[in-house]
Amino acid sequence: MRIEDLRTPAALVDSGVLERNASRMSDRVKRLGVRLRPHVKSHKTLEAARLQVRGHFGGITVSTLAEAAFFAAGGFRDITYAVPIAAAKLAAAVELALRLDRLNLLVDHPDAAAAVEACARERGVRFPVFLKVDCGYHRAGVDPANEESVAFAARLAASGQLNFCGILTHAGHAYQCRTAEEIRAVAAHERDVMVAFAGRLRAAGVPVEEVSLGSTPTLAVADNLAGVTEARPGNYAFFDAFQAAIGSCTLDEVAFSVLVRVIGRYPERRELLVDGGALALSKDPGPVHVDPTCGFGVVLTPSGTRLPGVRMVSLSQEHGVLRSATALGPDALPIGALLRIVPNHACLAAALFERYAVLRDGVVVDEWRPARGW
Amino acid sequence: MRIEDLRTPAALVDSGVLERNASRMSDRVKRLGVRLRPHVKSHKTLEAARLQVRGHFGGITVSTLAEAAFFAAGGFRDITYAVPIAAAKLAAAVELALRLDRLNLLVDHPDAAAAVEACARERGVRFPVFLKVDCGYHRAGVDPANEESVAFAARLAASGQLNFCGILTHAGHAYQCRTAEEIRAVAAHERDVMVAFAGRLRAAGVPVEEVSLGSTPTLAVADNLAGVTEARPGNYAFFDAFQAAIGSCTLDEVAFSVLVRVIGRYPERRELLVDGGALALSKDPGPVHVDPTCGFGVVLTPSGTRLPGVRMVSLSQEHGVLRSATALGPDALPIGALLRIVPNHACLAAALFERYAVLRDGVVVDEWRPARGW
Repeated sequence: MRIEDLRTPAALVDSGVLERNASRMSDRVKRLGVRLRPHVKSHKTLEAARLQVRGHFGGITVSTLAEAAFFAAGGFRDITYAVPIAAAKLAAAVELALRLDRLNLLVDHPDAAAAVEACARERGVRFPVFLKVDCGYHRAGVDPANEESVAFAARLAASGQLNFCGILTHAGHAYQCRTAEEIRAVAAHERDVMVAFAGRLRAAGVPVEEVSLGSTPTLAVADNLAGVTEARPGNYAFFDAFQAAIGSCTLDEVAFSVLVRVIGRYPERRELLVDGGALALSKDPGPVHVDPTCGFGVVLTPSGTRLPGVRMVSLSQEHGVLRSATALGPDALPIGALLRIVPNHACLAAALFERYAVLRDGVVVDEWRPARGW
Repeated sequence: MRIEDLRTPAALVDSGVLERNASRMSDRVKRLGVRLRPHVKSHKTLEAARLQVRGHFGGITVSTLAEAAFFAAGGFRDITYAVPIAAAKLAAAVELALRLDRLNLLVDHPDAAAAVEACARERGVRFPVFLKVDCGYHRAGVDPANEESVAFAARLAASGQLNFCGILTHAGHAYQCRTAEEIRAVAAHERDVMVAFAGRLRAAGVPVEEVSLGSTPTLAVADNLAGVTEARPGNYAFFDAFQAAIGSCTLDEVAFSVLVRVIGRYPERRELLVDGGALALSKDPGPVHVDPTCGFGVVLTPSGTRLPGVRMVSLSQEHGVLRSATALGPDALPIGALLRIVPNHACLAAALFERYAVLRDGVVVDEWRPARGW
């Protein structure tokens, strides 16, 4: 099938680019001497996850229990659910854990740990748990500088209902960097904080098997992960306009885009209407700290060449508005013209689609279906 | 089922509120003396659409052909597809039209009209079409002040392949207003522009049966629709935080919310983590022009009371961060606490869910499944 035959908006995955992205990160992480447990939340497909774990131990990271169930059904056996577990989800987590070799949970609060212990006791299971650590992102995790965090880890390690795996973090603040230099500093700090905290725990008699970290930006620049055992990047499979803007990739390395058609033309205001809106691209504002004029994605021709001077300036539910910096000649981008939009945030855009059209050499060769819901 | 038994994040629809919203708009539109053809894109469910058309002729408005097919299968017979049609979608539109009494299409460009005519000729059908008019929103539509727009309408009316229905607009710029006064001015202008343009067309010998307009904000305040034949509001079924901020409704009148649980607690920075993120609420920035501190939704208790001083300050894929203006006491909002978030934009948030839990008097009494995709 040709892309011209797709109903728009359509999610496109360039399989060649995806394979190269997977392979490049695989090599990087091997060179860095740590295990790769890729996050699969960006694409939520079995096919892309299989490419990500190729040559590695097969473990993955997920962001919902629905993803965990989907990947379990697809043959994945070792899964980290990387959001602090809610007590109300523990019954479902037990069911899942019984079908897997390993379902790692995250805790960062004593009440959550107590709920996991109570459930484990009641069901006669032991849960492997990570202590989530805040390395500076300030979204979740315990403060590694706080003495209570050491006591909390000791309590987890001493629990008869838990298998304490170690510590885990995510340097999400790397996304707010402007340069590779800044990201390199965040990456070094992420590692240093984790290695130092692991050292303090061990000095306090708490065994720390795993020191897990990772984000696509920090993994893209990290040059030394001594003391770390596991990396969990995810977005790198697809990449997106945000990652390109902060230097994690080039635009050519983005594997995901949204195919749209021109359905309106307003040369008097140099604008075009396309049939991909907020429900195809998400309203993620993108890397405005690097490029305040980034709009809602990067506009490409159907073959993937950037259209200079054309910006996606607004999105409503099913309408996208493109504005051209120069006059729209009568033959430029006519009604019906196909365009590809590289979304600001591929994870959010991809999750809006029931299926992805998979391209090889520009031709649709397959269709992948992502997991959905919670 | 109690809401406590729902897996979070969960989409909640309060059926009593929805029924009152539907009934109030139904009465308003009847009093204004026009037909109601509600937009169903906000909820995309048969159940809510049936409430919206109760007491009216049964026509609806949709934003995708997937919605059109879904509502056709659910028994709706008269549908306006209110996005300018792409030529590549015409084959699917013909299939749909053959199963309906009426599938109205929109055009605002001669090339699109020519494509509709060519398809109609080839398939031996006639398509009812509206001319989309720009009443000031500047997203889509012809300029009603332009002489070419009259000539274009005349061409549509003279076509042997088209049934020219009339003119249609959407005053989306009403969302940028700050007060009911400003919205009233947009509503009056929307009507005046359309009635004047219909008059010019008729004076030029173009028959104009329908003069269709509508947005929830303008319909909420319009006091005179003389010369208009049809109203197409949609968001009013659910309403949302944006509509409450610009005065289209009160918070009590919002029928849609997202149930989340507290999964992290960081009193040192007065923050809580909840298990609803960008994939549960969308990253719609909300009514920042009215309230720059609006955040990503309004935070309510499970029973629907506003939590003053607690804001949803950031969203990542599956994490939402709440910040409290005052210190978080040890008993306030503990781990596991349920909260309801009124999203900024219900249309975008609702589309992220596979199912809605339908509440009556706070108890889950039903589950509705929305249409999805394109």
